[in-house]
Amino acid sequence: MNTDWIAVDWGTSNLRVWAMGQASILAHATSDDGMGSLDRDGFEPALLRLIAPWLTEGRTTEVIACGMVGSRQGWFEAPYRATPCTPLDPAGLVSVPTHDTRLTVRIIPGVKQVKPADVMRGEETQIAGALALNAGFDGVICLPGTHSKWAHVSAGEVVSFQTFMTGELFALLSQHSVLRHGMAGGGWDDAAFDEALSDALSRPDRIAAKLFALRAEGLIAGLTPAAARSRLSGLLIGIELAASKPFWLGQKVAIVGSEALAQSYARALSAQGAEPRLIPATDATLAGLIAARAKVNA
Amino acid sequence: MNTDWIAVDWGTSNLRVWAMGQASILAHATSDDGMGSLDRDGFEPALLRLIAPWLTEGRTTEVIACGMVGSRQGWFEAPYRATPCTPLDPAGLVSVPTHDTRLTVRIIPGVKQVKPADVMRGEETQIAGALALNAGFDGVICLPGTHSKWAHVSAGEVVSFQTFMTGELFALLSQHSVLRHGMAGGGWDDAAFDEALSDALSRPDRIAAKLFALRAEGLIAGLTPAAARSRLSGLLIGIELAASKPFWLGQKVAIVGSEALAQSYARALSAQGAEPRLIPATDATLAGLIAARAKVNA
Repeated sequence: MNTDWIAVDWGTSNLRVWAMGQASILAHATSDDGMGSLDRDGFEPALLRLIAPWLTEGRTTEVIACGMVGSRQGWFEAPYRATPCTPLDPAGLVSVPTHDTRLTVRIIPGVKQVKPADVMRGEETQIAGALALNAGFDGVICLPGTHSKWAHVSAGEVVSFQTFMTGELFALLSQHSVLRHGMAGGGWDDAAFDEALSDALSRPDRIAAKLFALRAEGLIAGLTPAAARSRLSGLLIGIELAASKPFWLGQKVAIVGSEALAQSYARALSAQGAEPRLIPATDATLAGLIAARAKVNA
Repeated sequence: MNTDWIAVDWGTSNLRVWAMGQASILAHATSDDGMGSLDRDGFEPALLRLIAPWLTEGRTTEVIACGMVGSRQGWFEAPYRATPCTPLDPAGLVSVPTHDTRLTVRIIPGVKQVKPADVMRGEETQIAGALALNAGFDGVICLPGTHSKWAHVSAGEVVSFQTFMTGELFALLSQHSVLRHGMAGGGWDDAAFDEALSDALSRPDRIAAKLFALRAEGLIAGLTPAAARSRLSGLLIGIELAASKPFWLGQKVAIVGSEALAQSYARALSAQGAEPRLIPATDATLAGLIAARAKVNA
């Protein structure tokens, strides 16, 4: 196997690496050595555990990484670039000192917005990838997830963006709050999702009153776990769409996300008259890392 | 010590007991044997660990308990009574079979509202206590906490009520979400609380956009932990007050709560022109248990 370079997506919970050939992906590996579980000295060994088979003695292989690996608590801090800016700038990549001489590592910095204060790490690479896959795209890119981002993109630049804690709220409420008692097991209920979404979009100011009702209806009105879970998702995505309306209303929207969640957002936005296009998250990440590599070596 | 009867407040996390004389409290004890940590067989031993010294061989001591002890997952289910209803009804108390013959135990049932679905357990006793301490009170009783309740009380009855997950959201977000990184340590900032409260009250629909800003401002704009923590509290109480406006606007309001939290609610409501009176939570609980005992023996 002749590895040309190595692409790395290193988030809080996971590490994903790809051995890249001249024109194709040669191999892929993952581990749960996310930034959140590593000390500063743990990053290089964690990376080598996955990529060592792809390295060659006496040759230096280039590694390009994006994500939380570049945060202050990560391997090596890659200071944020500030909006408005292109999602990638080869001059912004930060070289990380390594012990192993078979590799050079560079980290793509995140992007910050000074006012209103906001930050992203990893999504800038996905945005670059989305633009690489959709040349000339002007509009809004929605990146659903633990911390959903909405970015206004124009003429190849991130003009502004905003983060919503939707995914993290869903995880906390469905797994760690009193609501978890009424959500055990799987299942999904589209009608419950749609109704809650519409409810939250039209009256987002009542969100604080809507949450406990999921528990109460489970106790005294027979709400099923599938309906409770779907309604919680609809409520939280609903208040996100209400607050992000200035981003998506009347705009061209692209959703960069993983399948089920992206489908929920697409369903929700379509119900509001938007016609979002879907870009799989991993495709965007890889296209962004490839674009970064191309720029560095241009 | 001549214990006349024993008052018990048995919530999810704590057990609190009082040895009551004819006209005063003789002794008080607490443990962390809350409903949430006990199997069904564990309740009687947990109670006896605290009250055994107050019992007399050959005599039966009456125990009256309120709270989650009467839930389906508790010691013995005390079925909800339905609004509109008085907060207490002696006929609704449920006798619990005990192994120890030195005591009889009765549990005060919770109250449910069929539509919109809602439930309370323990707060009905505090409401009864608030009414006992403020004869003839008509208006709204606010009970801040893990699951804050707002109850409309008229002519001695609970007419309607609504629950907000404010306290639980604050705990989850400040201790278990990404926001915890920016809130370590203590400290409080009244100005940050006031500003966030006013912000959330006037634009509750933007709550989903406001939360992550606490993290971003901590990272790039020097937001202090005390300000972040106070702002989170202001945002969450703000959206609660926005959604509970139909309860408190233009009404007489009483707050039943523990000191710091009740003060935050009083400060928030006062800023909106309300003039809430404060009733300490434990006073209300005890007055309610005493009222229940008096009714049972009337």
